[in-house]
Amino acid sequence: PKVAKGKAQAVVMNSGNANTCNGEQGLKDAEKMASESAEALGIPVEYTLVASTGVIGQRMPMDKIIKGIKQSADKLRPDGGLAAAEAIMTTDTVAKEYNLSYKYRGETITVGGMAKGSGMIHPDMATMLGFITTDAAISAPLLDKALRHAADCTFNMISIDGDTSTNDMVLALANGAAGKDEITSEDEGYHNFVKALVKVCRELAVQVARDGEGATKLLEVRVVNAPTEKDARIAARAVASSSLVKSAVFGKDANWGRIICAVGYSGADFDPENVDIFIGDMQVAKDGGALDFDEEKGKKILSDEKVVFLIDLKAGGYSATAWGCDLTYDYVKINASYRT
Amino acid sequence: PKVAKGKAQAVVMNSGNANTCNGEQGLKDAEKMASESAEALGIPVEYTLVASTGVIGQRMPMDKIIKGIKQSADKLRPDGGLAAAEAIMTTDTVAKEYNLSYKYRGETITVGGMAKGSGMIHPDMATMLGFITTDAAISAPLLDKALRHAADCTFNMISIDGDTSTNDMVLALANGAAGKDEITSEDEGYHNFVKALVKVCRELAVQVARDGEGATKLLEVRVVNAPTEKDARIAARAVASSSLVKSAVFGKDANWGRIICAVGYSGADFDPENVDIFIGDMQVAKDGGALDFDEEKGKKILSDEKVVFLIDLKAGGYSATAWGCDLTYDYVKINASYRT
Repeated sequence: PKVAKGKAQAVVMNSGNANTCNGEQGLKDAEKMASESAEALGIPVEYTLVASTGVIGQRMPMDKIIKGIKQSADKLRPDGGLAAAEAIMTTDTVAKEYNLSYKYRGETITVGGMAKGSGMIHPDMATMLGFITTDAAISAPLLDKALRHAADCTFNMISIDGDTSTNDMVLALANGAAGKDEITSEDEGYHNFVKALVKVCRELAVQVARDGEGATKLLEVRVVNAPTEKDARIAARAVASSSLVKSAVFGKDANWGRIICAVGYSGADFDPENVDIFIGDMQVAKDGGALDFDEEKGKKILSDEKVVFLIDLKAGGYSATAWGCDLTYDYVKINASYRT
Repeated sequence: PKVAKGKAQAVVMNSGNANTCNGEQGLKDAEKMASESAEALGIPVEYTLVASTGVIGQRMPMDKIIKGIKQSADKLRPDGGLAAAEAIMTTDTVAKEYNLSYKYRGETITVGGMAKGSGMIHPDMATMLGFITTDAAISAPLLDKALRHAADCTFNMISIDGDTSTNDMVLALANGAAGKDEITSEDEGYHNFVKALVKVCRELAVQVARDGEGATKLLEVRVVNAPTEKDARIAARAVASSSLVKSAVFGKDANWGRIICAVGYSGADFDPENVDIFIGDMQVAKDGGALDFDEEKGKKILSDEKVVFLIDLKAGGYSATAWGCDLTYDYVKINASYRT
């Protein structure tokens, strides 16, 4: 309810403990995190947001947390982004950051973001924390709208293991420092901002997919010529989420049958006898049937650290892209022993 | 359309090739399998059913298939069930069979079945072939109804990897040899038959889950006291399907947070603050919060070859059970190299 006012000045986050399934005590602990942070920063508590990620069902170690809040507040600095991105890593192997600037009517507007996420990743936004900041001047309702759109085609198009989460959040904070005129309608300035925001969110989402638990490869699944945007999205997501597709990618096996199978069970509207499938630049299926392709070339394409599947449904004009990663021995290893 | 008449006398099945994504030619090949079988057996072609399982998108090796049909027809014998169950194995490590007999009004009625399935297993019926035979006398519409019910609470409650399939089928054939009176209404005789059929289907489904690709353990997830049957089923299936739960089971980690998380994203209607969770006979969560349980005992329970999770939603009177298996290195290994 506090956030609903659309204003915030600080985010306090921790990793290692999700503060979930902790009942009343968990709520109190979260409120304490906010009030301690607000006090340390000298800002109103209702402008302080809380994010937690980690193990479910264990009480927050509040002594440690409160000490950490005080220490962190003392260390706040403009170039502290990487330190923050590193601090919220759980099974992430790399910190995720991205930023860009663009010019509009003589002003330079910057959009930057950080994210964490590696496992238990599946729409919507599962176990991802994403924080975007910008000096654009934009009204709270339009920033909300822009962020929802951006999340839908980026953070909500990645899957690592099909598990959604109890803890996930994406926030965008705009301070207006770069903007003479606040964006208050869906004009050219708004659309430019949305484009920049989508780009930042996409880069972060792709970094998360690439750093999927145990992953050796980034998998990009493009579905084109679907009858609706929804059909394109669910088809792309089904392929990127399939354990069998992901295992085949790990094994460098151009097993397109598993790709068309996943499109089939996705619920997308299409005619199997019209589907063309490309792995990288090599076509492997035409009109839903096998092509006599070069298996060795397939192995080579699937050896790259980024693998692209293009699926042409020839059923309309909508497209969507989903991202995932391969399923490897290390995914199992990491998740067989995460908690203990 | 031929099967729609409700009568059949033979099933011809092959493994290794799914005869899927083969267009018109695939349909012709399937029809040829039926006609060759009918000829070899001296029965009408419309009483001959076809099932294929294996790699998608490769033409059927019809010379080999036709030769196989002739050879198999010569070898038909009453005790040939195991040979048939073995012949349709793909990545299965053991053949799946089960049968039972029961008495009703002085008659002994037998229900027997065989199945195959190990990977690409997820409702509905994915990549499973199940064949039930019985000497019960039952009308075709009631046998159909009984089988749908049995499949819903057995074959449709198992998941190995979340992938559904292009090829799956369960058939029941009843020859009436044991029955003086045909079952034509939902009377006591029908309910006894349904009970037997469910038991056979459940045993086969559990055998499939236990033999999941790479599995070292059978996972049984019982959800009790759900507000509706649907809520119970989707909750049980979500837990049994979760890659993270399955990895934790492999790692013998009593990570109940992943269990309640999966119930949460299942879409089932429940209050997280009312949920009790048991791993084996040990309670690990009460009213949605942590209990101070014995981790060593948890490890011991999770070392068994069968692990049971009981999830009490305390939200109604409906229950459901789902079955799955752990996610292991070998699952990845098998599916990284299945085709090539």
